[in-house]
Amino acid sequence: MARIGVILSGSGFLDGAEITEAVSTLVALDRAGAEIVCMAPDADQRQVVDHRTGKPTGETRNVLVEAARIARGKIAPLSEVDPASLDGIVMPGGFGAALNLSSFALEGPKASIREDVAGMLRAVHAAGKPIGAICIAPALVALALGDEGPTITIGEDAGTAQALEALGAHHQTCPVERAVTDEAKKIVTCPAYMYDARPSEVAAGIEKLVGEVLRLAR
Amino acid sequence: MARIGVILSGSGFLDGAEITEAVSTLVALDRAGAEIVCMAPDADQRQVVDHRTGKPTGETRNVLVEAARIARGKIAPLSEVDPASLDGIVMPGGFGAALNLSSFALEGPKASIREDVAGMLRAVHAAGKPIGAICIAPALVALALGDEGPTITIGEDAGTAQALEALGAHHQTCPVERAVTDEAKKIVTCPAYMYDARPSEVAAGIEKLVGEVLRLAR
Repeated sequence: MARIGVILSGSGFLDGAEITEAVSTLVALDRAGAEIVCMAPDADQRQVVDHRTGKPTGETRNVLVEAARIARGKIAPLSEVDPASLDGIVMPGGFGAALNLSSFALEGPKASIREDVAGMLRAVHAAGKPIGAICIAPALVALALGDEGPTITIGEDAGTAQALEALGAHHQTCPVERAVTDEAKKIVTCPAYMYDARPSEVAAGIEKLVGEVLRLAR
Repeated sequence: MARIGVILSGSGFLDGAEITEAVSTLVALDRAGAEIVCMAPDADQRQVVDHRTGKPTGETRNVLVEAARIARGKIAPLSEVDPASLDGIVMPGGFGAALNLSSFALEGPKASIREDVAGMLRAVHAAGKPIGAICIAPALVALALGDEGPTITIGEDAGTAQALEALGAHHQTCPVERAVTDEAKKIVTCPAYMYDARPSEVAAGIEKLVGEVLRLAR
């Protein structure tokens, strides 16, 4: 049974992990028989956004504590997970990936990525294990591993694609229900809510991504 | 295309809607081509619970605003949704159903249910349209419609089943991947996380429930 780490960045697409993407990831991994290890940084969110109005609320919330809502409490601080214990990683999207795990939403190709997240991705990658990244999370792949020139997708958003290419990645357009696999580098990406998509389309794309990650984890 | 209302009670199983159940509901409805109308009461949650520790935090959060995280902002105050505009209702579980929509978690068969929620359920039911209830949400059916003696399930939890029967419902045991249909009363229920279940099992049971609700909505 493959042991797959899932890096969450909060709970809610405007300030954390996109919830439909996260749950679709967990359901697809579980359906395929994988063991799931949810993790998130034990750190404050960059902001808290009212998901009804789209406006910041001024509250303080912790990435790990909010992500625990999705994981039903079964979640570890990212710093406590040994990359060597994992057979692969999947990262759902949502602004949390681009605000809490990195500064990509604010700074584009000049963004920084959290050192613990970058370290986890580089260690798993160096061990020859696959990484799956959904929606905007491919930006984390580009920030951590862009110098290796991975082929990734964020759908068809030209501006974001350009920022990822500035980091060294090659961008490939991809419809919402498909995933792009860089076979040699074992990087799998799918666009999900980078499109104005329906929940079932997002789930379909993520099911393909999870299938590819598990194939490459063997 | 059936237009199905989904009543959410927050976002997170310890103080709101169970997230995997809610997303599984949205994905299954969308996959079947239904139009989804998410709604929640515009009211404070009874409590806010840290999902990592399981302890109350003392914060104040609004049911509608938190539920908007699951619905990506596409959600209406429950009071603004006309029951006549709907072809059916589905209610995910989580403690929110038993704490925010009713007091069932605190008072069992002596609980009260929010008047707006009860009114919505009674109106939809009186119009001959189906109601689906997941996990602990069948308690809301028993609180609103127990005097009609609907057959429902919450899995195999004897204490909870007894409380539901005290409200007039008939309880039927049911495994996690199945749903119970009261054909005459058009009430469909499934146990989901009333069991210590896996995400894919929860999704499978909810897919069956949604299929039944849509069949009865025709």
